[in-house]
Amino acid sequence: MYCNDTACYLVALTTFMILPILEIKNSSKRGRGVFANDNIKQDTVIEISPVIVLTEKERKIVEKTILFDYIFEWGTNKKRACVAMGYVSMYNHNYDANCEYEMDFKKRLMTIKTVKPIKRGEELFVNYNASPNDKTRVWFDKGK
Amino acid sequence: MYCNDTACYLVALTTFMILPILEIKNSSKRGRGVFANDNIKQDTVIEISPVIVLTEKERKIVEKTILFDYIFEWGTNKKRACVAMGYVSMYNHNYDANCEYEMDFKKRLMTIKTVKPIKRGEELFVNYNASPNDKTRVWFDKGK
Repeated sequence: MYCNDTACYLVALTTFMILPILEIKNSSKRGRGVFANDNIKQDTVIEISPVIVLTEKERKIVEKTILFDYIFEWGTNKKRACVAMGYVSMYNHNYDANCEYEMDFKKRLMTIKTVKPIKRGEELFVNYNASPNDKTRVWFDKGK
Repeated sequence: MYCNDTACYLVALTTFMILPILEIKNSSKRGRGVFANDNIKQDTVIEISPVIVLTEKERKIVEKTILFDYIFEWGTNKKRACVAMGYVSMYNHNYDANCEYEMDFKKRLMTIKTVKPIKRGEELFVNYNASPNDKTRVWFDKGK
């Protein structure tokens, strides 16, 4: 069991970190996804990664590409966007996600935290609506 | 000393990995950079990260934004580009780099390997010309 203490230690070690128990693997019908290769306690910070911030104008440009599916809205008014490094952009969407993300607009970083206990081998999901249980249809699920 | 065996073990564990001894910190005059918080042997694979591939058309679009400074040319003819995840996009440039990157066009991943012994606390650099010692001026160094 990967304990919160370990996560806390890694956070203390550096502003940015990715727990080495995270794996990128193929997720059926979803392309690549992030998986846990060990159990993880609920409320464990599993990743803190830097982001590249795009201006409102740049966001409109980038949204014309495949990056539309990867960027996150950024800033308190959500007009800008960011490309997240680490594994942040690799988490698939789930309307009942087992992880959540938090943004630090000042430090230009995103934190991923578990919101449920994770079992070894489980895929880790975030809810692209930001809130782990928000059932609002996301763009690629419209009309289904 | 972080040994190659450990790196190999991590590689075996998953296709993708980032050694937990890598840190993202501020690099003087260069914004953020990747640093080693332990000694690393030469020829150690320190990171294997996924990339998001852009078509030739998408590359031209994305190059109009700040992402121009982050994307890598992609494909044997170098006409496409990729946005690299993990910490790959965070390594600063050096004409005498202590790391090098390798691209796997089929698996859509990039590998970062040390080409020199690294001392704890050292910043890790790649040469944006691909070859660790290529002295060709890079775009942000033109006219200096």
